[in-house]
Amino acid sequence: MGSKRLNNPVVGVDMGGTKILAGVVTEEGNIIGMAKRATKPADGADKVIERIVRTVQDAVANAKLKLDDIAGIASGTPGPLDPDSGIVISAPNLGWDNVPLAKLLSRALDMPVFIENDVNIGTLGEAALGAGKGVKDLIGIFVGTGIGGGIILDGMLWQGWRKTAGEVGHMILLPEGPLCGCGRRGCAESLASRTAIERDILAGIALGRESLVPEILKREDKTRLTSGILAEALKKGDPLVGEVIGRTQYYLGLLVASIVNFIDPEMVILGGGVVVALGDDFLVPIRRVAYQYFINQRNAKDVKIVPAKLGDNAGVLGAAVYARQRLA
Amino acid sequence: MGSKRLNNPVVGVDMGGTKILAGVVTEEGNIIGMAKRATKPADGADKVIERIVRTVQDAVANAKLKLDDIAGIASGTPGPLDPDSGIVISAPNLGWDNVPLAKLLSRALDMPVFIENDVNIGTLGEAALGAGKGVKDLIGIFVGTGIGGGIILDGMLWQGWRKTAGEVGHMILLPEGPLCGCGRRGCAESLASRTAIERDILAGIALGRESLVPEILKREDKTRLTSGILAEALKKGDPLVGEVIGRTQYYLGLLVASIVNFIDPEMVILGGGVVVALGDDFLVPIRRVAYQYFINQRNAKDVKIVPAKLGDNAGVLGAAVYARQRLA
Repeated sequence: MGSKRLNNPVVGVDMGGTKILAGVVTEEGNIIGMAKRATKPADGADKVIERIVRTVQDAVANAKLKLDDIAGIASGTPGPLDPDSGIVISAPNLGWDNVPLAKLLSRALDMPVFIENDVNIGTLGEAALGAGKGVKDLIGIFVGTGIGGGIILDGMLWQGWRKTAGEVGHMILLPEGPLCGCGRRGCAESLASRTAIERDILAGIALGRESLVPEILKREDKTRLTSGILAEALKKGDPLVGEVIGRTQYYLGLLVASIVNFIDPEMVILGGGVVVALGDDFLVPIRRVAYQYFINQRNAKDVKIVPAKLGDNAGVLGAAVYARQRLA
Repeated sequence: MGSKRLNNPVVGVDMGGTKILAGVVTEEGNIIGMAKRATKPADGADKVIERIVRTVQDAVANAKLKLDDIAGIASGTPGPLDPDSGIVISAPNLGWDNVPLAKLLSRALDMPVFIENDVNIGTLGEAALGAGKGVKDLIGIFVGTGIGGGIILDGMLWQGWRKTAGEVGHMILLPEGPLCGCGRRGCAESLASRTAIERDILAGIALGRESLVPEILKREDKTRLTSGILAEALKKGDPLVGEVIGRTQYYLGLLVASIVNFIDPEMVILGGGVVVALGDDFLVPIRRVAYQYFINQRNAKDVKIVPAKLGDNAGVLGAAVYARQRLA
C-alpha cells in the first residue's frame, strides 16, 4: 500500500495497570489482528512504553500488515491526562507523572498517536460499535473498583473544558456519606462501586450477619471480594450480599436519574466488572429507580438504560474510533 | 426597510406567570425598545396570546420601527414545551395544556416565532450577553421558588434528546431527603430553593427558635417569606435565617461540584430571585464548598462560579439571541 490514507486500518490500544491490549481495526470497525502483553508498571515508564510498541507491532503482524499500512494509533490510558499534548499527567496505578506518552509512541512507531482517558475511550467504543450503535447522545457508567464515566454528545466524545468531563463517580449522592477513595464523602463511588460493596459486606460479616462470603473466600483462597465472588454469593441467595447489592442498585438508579435530568440523553450504558459479573438482571432495579426519578415522565421509557456489550474489546475498538476521529 | 434580513432587529419576549416583557434587540445585543404587560393567565390562553401580540407591537413602536423591520421573534416560556413544534405542552402556572404558542403568535404577527423554556433562555442570555460573554461552555443555575438550569455547550443551548435538559433542580442530592414539589424526595430543589428555605425557617419558628422573621412579616403585612425578607433578616444577623441560608449554600456548592465533575464547564452562573436578593456574597460559601468537591483539583479555580448579571433583562436578551440562532 505504501501511503497512509484515512481509510487504512488504525491500531487501538487498551492500556491498563495489568495488561496492554492492541488491535488492528478496519474502517468498518472489525478487528483483524490482536496482541496482548503484561504491563508490569513496576519496571518503569520506558519499559512499559517499549512493551506497548512491541504489542502494536505484534498486532500489525498478526493482521498480516506492515506499520506503513496503519493510518494512526490511539491509546485508552488511565488518567488524568491531556489528550491535546498527549501527556499522562498522573497515573497512580502506573506510577507515572507527566509522561509524554503520545510523543514517545509516535517517535517509536513513526505515525500519529493520540491518547485519551480509558473510560472515555470505552464509552466511545460502546457508542460507535457497541450498545450505543446509532445513538448520538449517551452516557457510559462503568462500575468496577471505582466508578467512571464518559459522555457522548452528537456522536463525539465530550471532553470538557479542562478535558476531565465524565467523572460520574464523583457526583455527590449522599452528603456526609461514606468516605470515598478521593478523600471526600458521599460520592457515587463511595456508595456503589465494588469497593463500597466489599466494605459493606465485610462490615456486615464483622457485625455477625450470616453470609456465604467467608466460606467462598476460603474455598477460593482469596482475600478480596471480586465481582465473581459477589455473583456467586448473590446467585446462592446470600441475604447480606443481596441487601448490599440492592442498595448499590438504588444508588446507581439515583445516579442515572440525576444524569438524565441534567443532560437528557437518549441512552445510558452501564458496564464495568460489577455489571459484567452480575449480568443483565443487575440493571432491572436500577432502571426501576431511575425511571421513577426522571423529572420528565413524558417518553421516559424511551430513554434506554442498557448493559455495555463490547466486553474486553471496548477499549481497543473505542481507541480505534478515537484515532479515526482525531485523524479526520 | 421592507425585506426582513437576518441582521435586522429581533424581538425577545420574556413570558412569565405574572408579566409579559418584550424587547426589540439589535444584532449587537442592544435593547432599543421595550414594553410590558400583565399576563393575567386566569383570562385564558387566547387573551394571554392577544396580550403578547400587543406587547410585541408596543415594543416595536417604542423602538420607532414597524413589524416589517423585525427579522423574527422568540419567547422564553414556562414549560415543558417542544421548541421544534412550538407547542407549550403543559404550563401549570398558566393553566395551559398543548397550546401551539409559536404558530398562533406567528400567524398574528406574520413572521417566524420560536419558543424555548424560560430558564434555558435566561441561561443563553447570560451566556451571550451577560456574565458568560466569551465563554463557550457554561451552566446556569437559577434559584427562586424552584431551581432551574440551562446548559450551554460550544456556545449553543444544549436542549437534550427529549428537549428537557438542564433540570438541575431535580438532580438528587439527599436520598430520602425532604419532599420536593415534584413529589419525590431529596432533589436539589427540595433542599436549596426559596421554598425549601421558607419551609425550614417556618419550621424553626414553630419549634420556638428565635428569629426576626415573624416581626418583619407582620410589619410588611405579608405571609410569604420573599427573597427580600430573607435578605433583610440575614443582614440583621437573624441566627435561624443564617443557619438555613448556610445549609442552602452548602447544598448549592455540592450541586455545582456534581455538575462540574460531570460536564466540566468553564463557568457556572448563579442567578434567580434568591441570588439577586442576597447579593454576590451569597456565592462565597457556595464557591468554597464547590471547589473543595471538584474531583479534578488541577486548575480548579479557573472554573468560574459567578453571579448572573443581566437581571430582569436576561429573558428578553436571551430570547433575542435564541431567535437569531434559530433564524440563522
